[in-house]
Amino acid sequence: MKDELKYITGLKDIKGINGIFDLENLRKDYSTLLQKEVSHNKIVSGLEEAIQKSGLKDGQTISFHHHFRGGDFIVNMVVEKLAQMGFKNLVLAPSSLTDCHAPLIKHIQNGVIRRIETSGLRGKLADEVSRGLMETPVVFRSHGGRAYAIETGELPIDVAFLGAPSCDPFGNANGYSRDSDEGVKCGSMGYAKCDARYAKKTIILTNNIVHFPNVPFGIPESDVDYIVKVNEIGDPAGIMVGATRYTTNPKELVMAEMAADVIEASGCLVDGFSFQTGTGGASLAVSRFLREKMLARGITASFALGGITGSIVDLHEEGLVKKILDVQGFDLKAADSLKNNRFHHQISAEYYASPRGAGAAVNQLDVVVLSALEADLNFNVNVLTGSDGIIRGAIGGHQDTAYGASVSIIICPLTRGRIPCIVDRVGTIVTPGRTVDVIVTEQGVAVNPERRDLLDRFKAAKIPVHPIEELRGMVEAIVGKPDPVEYTGRVVGIVTYRDGSVIDLIHQVK
Amino acid sequence: MKDELKYITGLKDIKGINGIFDLENLRKDYSTLLQKEVSHNKIVSGLEEAIQKSGLKDGQTISFHHHFRGGDFIVNMVVEKLAQMGFKNLVLAPSSLTDCHAPLIKHIQNGVIRRIETSGLRGKLADEVSRGLMETPVVFRSHGGRAYAIETGELPIDVAFLGAPSCDPFGNANGYSRDSDEGVKCGSMGYAKCDARYAKKTIILTNNIVHFPNVPFGIPESDVDYIVKVNEIGDPAGIMVGATRYTTNPKELVMAEMAADVIEASGCLVDGFSFQTGTGGASLAVSRFLREKMLARGITASFALGGITGSIVDLHEEGLVKKILDVQGFDLKAADSLKNNRFHHQISAEYYASPRGAGAAVNQLDVVVLSALEADLNFNVNVLTGSDGIIRGAIGGHQDTAYGASVSIIICPLTRGRIPCIVDRVGTIVTPGRTVDVIVTEQGVAVNPERRDLLDRFKAAKIPVHPIEELRGMVEAIVGKPDPVEYTGRVVGIVTYRDGSVIDLIHQVK
Repeated sequence: MKDELKYITGLKDIKGINGIFDLENLRKDYSTLLQKEVSHNKIVSGLEEAIQKSGLKDGQTISFHHHFRGGDFIVNMVVEKLAQMGFKNLVLAPSSLTDCHAPLIKHIQNGVIRRIETSGLRGKLADEVSRGLMETPVVFRSHGGRAYAIETGELPIDVAFLGAPSCDPFGNANGYSRDSDEGVKCGSMGYAKCDARYAKKTIILTNNIVHFPNVPFGIPESDVDYIVKVNEIGDPAGIMVGATRYTTNPKELVMAEMAADVIEASGCLVDGFSFQTGTGGASLAVSRFLREKMLARGITASFALGGITGSIVDLHEEGLVKKILDVQGFDLKAADSLKNNRFHHQISAEYYASPRGAGAAVNQLDVVVLSALEADLNFNVNVLTGSDGIIRGAIGGHQDTAYGASVSIIICPLTRGRIPCIVDRVGTIVTPGRTVDVIVTEQGVAVNPERRDLLDRFKAAKIPVHPIEELRGMVEAIVGKPDPVEYTGRVVGIVTYRDGSVIDLIHQVK
Repeated sequence: MKDELKYITGLKDIKGINGIFDLENLRKDYSTLLQKEVSHNKIVSGLEEAIQKSGLKDGQTISFHHHFRGGDFIVNMVVEKLAQMGFKNLVLAPSSLTDCHAPLIKHIQNGVIRRIETSGLRGKLADEVSRGLMETPVVFRSHGGRAYAIETGELPIDVAFLGAPSCDPFGNANGYSRDSDEGVKCGSMGYAKCDARYAKKTIILTNNIVHFPNVPFGIPESDVDYIVKVNEIGDPAGIMVGATRYTTNPKELVMAEMAADVIEASGCLVDGFSFQTGTGGASLAVSRFLREKMLARGITASFALGGITGSIVDLHEEGLVKKILDVQGFDLKAADSLKNNRFHHQISAEYYASPRGAGAAVNQLDVVVLSALEADLNFNVNVLTGSDGIIRGAIGGHQDTAYGASVSIIICPLTRGRIPCIVDRVGTIVTPGRTVDVIVTEQGVAVNPERRDLLDRFKAAKIPVHPIEELRGMVEAIVGKPDPVEYTGRVVGIVTYRDGSVIDLIHQVK
């Protein structure tokens, strides 16, 4: 019988059984639980108290979400407080960083932040990093790759600081408020859900405490430790602007229409198909042309996935898209739809795109339409560094959806101004060519030679197909061969693929 | 720089950086990911293939949910298959077991099942266990205690076998079907959500494959590995019967009305209050009397929690209960409401009741009304063993809600037939008296001496309060002192408290 006891792993302090133990001693265990104060309220006096209670130590990893985009106040507010409190050598691991995070530069110089893991960098911070600001390279991960790293413990988060447009006193938080709107909403909190689930401690920062239970919730109270009420979490004007302009650029409209033709010719456009469109001007416009084709064919899509825009919501409300799986909202219409449309469903980063065994929603995609800064002769795509070698973008779900979708379509103009966009070798490989099926330019499309099936279909549908080398030739005829960017030997960025392996390095520009 | 690398935990096989590494070698890593087959469909040929793919080994732990209650076909089906396949020494860890699981007896005798962890046991299996069927004692855990043990790894689940009334080909599963009802529904899958989240491998068994994406989902595809299509998952007639009879018993109605008076007198009955009522006849009837009091006072409840019945749904649809947090549905009305009412929200076992740091919904309860087999002079409650010492119940959320609620009310008649229910010392301590505030009998109520505040309020409200010893005296006057149950020295059951510590032992009856 004693031998059997070792199988009973769940029991604490069993002294023995069937005669050998002392029941009174055993009872002491549960009485300690009873003496603990039940937490009826997780709201603490302020950010400093929350940080102290979290047990954060120098050198540990803190995380943030980027659902507030260019309007985010949380990252700067928290890092400023951590600096005041004397923290050093922290690892900053937000889901992404934007233009508004330039104040981090001084905290990197001060030694408060030692290194960064993120999906993207933009603006002055990105410039400085590209020029050698940090001793340790920035690690870039896709949204799925980041979720995977967090799930597997490769990126352990000690404390997550998550801004929320609504939260009840026990921690049920959401990207909008049902009870009392106070001006800020961001819609889905998909990336934050992952952090809250896996962080050792989770702190919610909110300007809007609502009644319990704040359901449906984005983040459940069971994943939340402390709540801080702050005056402002972000600038509403900055949260919902940026990538989602609705293009009137004729070149973008030509590419968008061609991408829709490509989708139709690929054979994907059948009843029940699924798709994701990115937020570049052209890829955003694709949904407009898809709508016409769906109406003409009398079909509906089973779901749309990803970062969601008002144009997807329009299709949903028109009945053309049955369900929306939303990891991130890009505009107010998307945020309001999540609140009001029952089949507009909030999903987590890991559900969306993690490459772990159980699979993710990206694997169920028929079609994804993505944008690019550059694409090359091997169909590799760069969405991270400009032609000058400076970091100015984010991996986002690019790698994840290109891998998962049955047909991945990259919209990339031949040139932007005098800058060539179809090149011999991209400055930074972000999405490997093996996962890219079609590149759409304003002068025609190139098809990955491994997708012979698509090539045949496109020719039959009279899509203007060219070998990628021919498109590259057109580019060179327009803008010539630019001088190569000059780099030092020093690495400033490590680009990882979805599983955490290194796919490319970003060097310091001279 | 090399020293810094050790901080970059997320990168595999970095050979070096800034000149020392070989990029081509690094690239091999992600190409192996690319070569993996994308799983577009998790449906396997049958249960045997799913078991083989899961990697299950002798001695490992398998789990099940009890949302199909007395109509469950899954546990018997799977264990029968495991027996055929020659598995031995398995640990069976379902969220609970019922009358319909008597076929397990032979698989315990065969050595297929070595030990059991469960919330409850009933029927012939419980009889046999009480009489010494198993060499290793059964471990009993509350719903919150089980979730906690799973979360913390004290109860590691190797393979979860989860029946689902609907599932899409990628694993989004739910307790009802939105697209094509096929006769079986169970409503919330709260306990199964926990298993799917934490099991090393999760297998869904369903009779109803629906289109992707099956959202809103109970279990997300990201927690599912394999799907088995079976002809039948359960007997609809058995899934929704059992505990939820609507009483016409005059004694139960007297106690229900008194419990409602106690709630009112306790001061809890204010606008925005919250409550949970159990499924015993009397505690179920409490909601009826609460309704009248709420209407009279012109107040509404902020939420109702727990196992949900049609009577709670009625209050919700009438506008008297704003939100429902549903871990388990007890009848068809509850299942349909979860499907149709947006603020009837499905929650997981850990969200419901786990005693871990972040707290659980039970901690936000103002009032809980629970039933009992026995209660004693120390206010300890037994819901697990009968007066004959035979196991015939389940801990359920009893310990969790009694601990969490501001006022915990136990409805317990003085006697059932010739059986005393208020006793000197309960046969099995399940819920410790320190967490029990009020015991309601048909002859009046007893208040825990530590709740002096309640005692004063009840006296002011003219509630018939008696010292517990007085109620005990009434019982003895009616039925006398029964002969004590005779036990052997052998332990057949270990009753744990919410944190996994041992609170009592169940001995073999002679």
